[in-house]
Amino acid sequence: MTYCVGLLLKDGLVFASDSRTNAGVDYVTSFSKLHIFTPAPDRFFVLMSSGNLATTQGVLNRIVRDLEYPSDRGSLLTARYMFEAADYIGKISQEIQREHGPALMSSGVSVETTLILGGQIQGQNPGLMLIYPQGNYFEATRETPYLQIGENKYGKPVLDRAVGALTGLEEGARLLLVSLDATSRSNATVGPPFEVAIYRRDDMKINHHLKLAANDPYLLQLQQCWNEGLCATLHSLPVFDWETPALG
Amino acid sequence: MTYCVGLLLKDGLVFASDSRTNAGVDYVTSFSKLHIFTPAPDRFFVLMSSGNLATTQGVLNRIVRDLEYPSDRGSLLTARYMFEAADYIGKISQEIQREHGPALMSSGVSVETTLILGGQIQGQNPGLMLIYPQGNYFEATRETPYLQIGENKYGKPVLDRAVGALTGLEEGARLLLVSLDATSRSNATVGPPFEVAIYRRDDMKINHHLKLAANDPYLLQLQQCWNEGLCATLHSLPVFDWETPALG
Repeated sequence: MTYCVGLLLKDGLVFASDSRTNAGVDYVTSFSKLHIFTPAPDRFFVLMSSGNLATTQGVLNRIVRDLEYPSDRGSLLTARYMFEAADYIGKISQEIQREHGPALMSSGVSVETTLILGGQIQGQNPGLMLIYPQGNYFEATRETPYLQIGENKYGKPVLDRAVGALTGLEEGARLLLVSLDATSRSNATVGPPFEVAIYRRDDMKINHHLKLAANDPYLLQLQQCWNEGLCATLHSLPVFDWETPALG
Repeated sequence: MTYCVGLLLKDGLVFASDSRTNAGVDYVTSFSKLHIFTPAPDRFFVLMSSGNLATTQGVLNRIVRDLEYPSDRGSLLTARYMFEAADYIGKISQEIQREHGPALMSSGVSVETTLILGGQIQGQNPGLMLIYPQGNYFEATRETPYLQIGENKYGKPVLDRAVGALTGLEEGARLLLVSLDATSRSNATVGPPFEVAIYRRDDMKINHHLKLAANDPYLLQLQQCWNEGLCATLHSLPVFDWETPALG
């Protein structure tokens, strides 16, 4: 399984993903799920993936080929809007699924991949969208500024509680790391290294891109600080009316 | 869907459950999922359920009937150990599923129910076990002191992070409420009223049993306090090395 989450803020975009890939419990490996494309100075894209690894790699490879060998079907260079880029990627994904779906289905394996596309085309607002395996997409909005794919339930409550209180991109990145860490603690199929990428609006390139191993000092410090804050909050919750309130 | 969680602590047991029941999105109702049995002064049981409501009610009804009309198949009165009570309830559950399973399966509806049984028989330690739809069970231990049934993923991270820091039964009840509240915020099929029951070891009766509606002042206070603590913790997380640390 996988867990990826993207965040659309006033100041830009934040992306985070785990790196664990498994085909059964006996074949657990590490693959990056966060892919950056800057095909021209006026545009910037990040693609994150959850699902069949072969389908995902097929999508990535064809995106690169279409940039190097332009054709009628377009590319990330020809997209005039973020939604056209999403449509284009959705079509490639469908194409690969059509090619390999029947063979995989007969083996009982899903060919599907779900993608998060974020980015900006100059002169327009940054965009963040979830591309379904069926090729269609929907966009994050001010009301629902985050999108998740993969093992999304464990890390959702903390997003729901805190996303409205965010002060900026870096704090957004910390919140996504907490959400990833929560998922990784509670589910063995999601694990470090955790990747985080921060994109500041109108920069047309990634500002910061971190890859944090399980023993990364910053990640350990973040985990400890979060756990201590959570336990302190637990100890400070209002007591029931039959308990003697502590003096002071 | 449903979310129920039980907690085994040194001092006793804590139980919490939501009350939302739905058959599709058009038929959402409220049913208690936390059932208390004190058939004799030397024993005490709590049963929580997630799954087919008819199967669950069938199990509850037959438990009561077996107490009033003793027979060879035993009852909660004849169980000499907690595990015998679990075995007995697992058998009743299987019996009902056998009776109604084929008809329900032909309608595409699951007849299954998953149960959490907690309690104590005098002279023994309190016990907490999860009874599978197949009738077998497993027990909570010191290492894994909580058991969940139903929509369990949203509320798990906070348990994993904080369960080791609990100071007592009341704080355990607050933690379970936070776990319920997290689930309810992130998933529309889990909702208040929330029930909480606290059992102090060797008391052979429930010490406190609360039913908190969505607008209950204590619940609102708990939610606010938890959210504030979470957001304060988020704001206090260690900054990335490229950020200018705040002075002081």
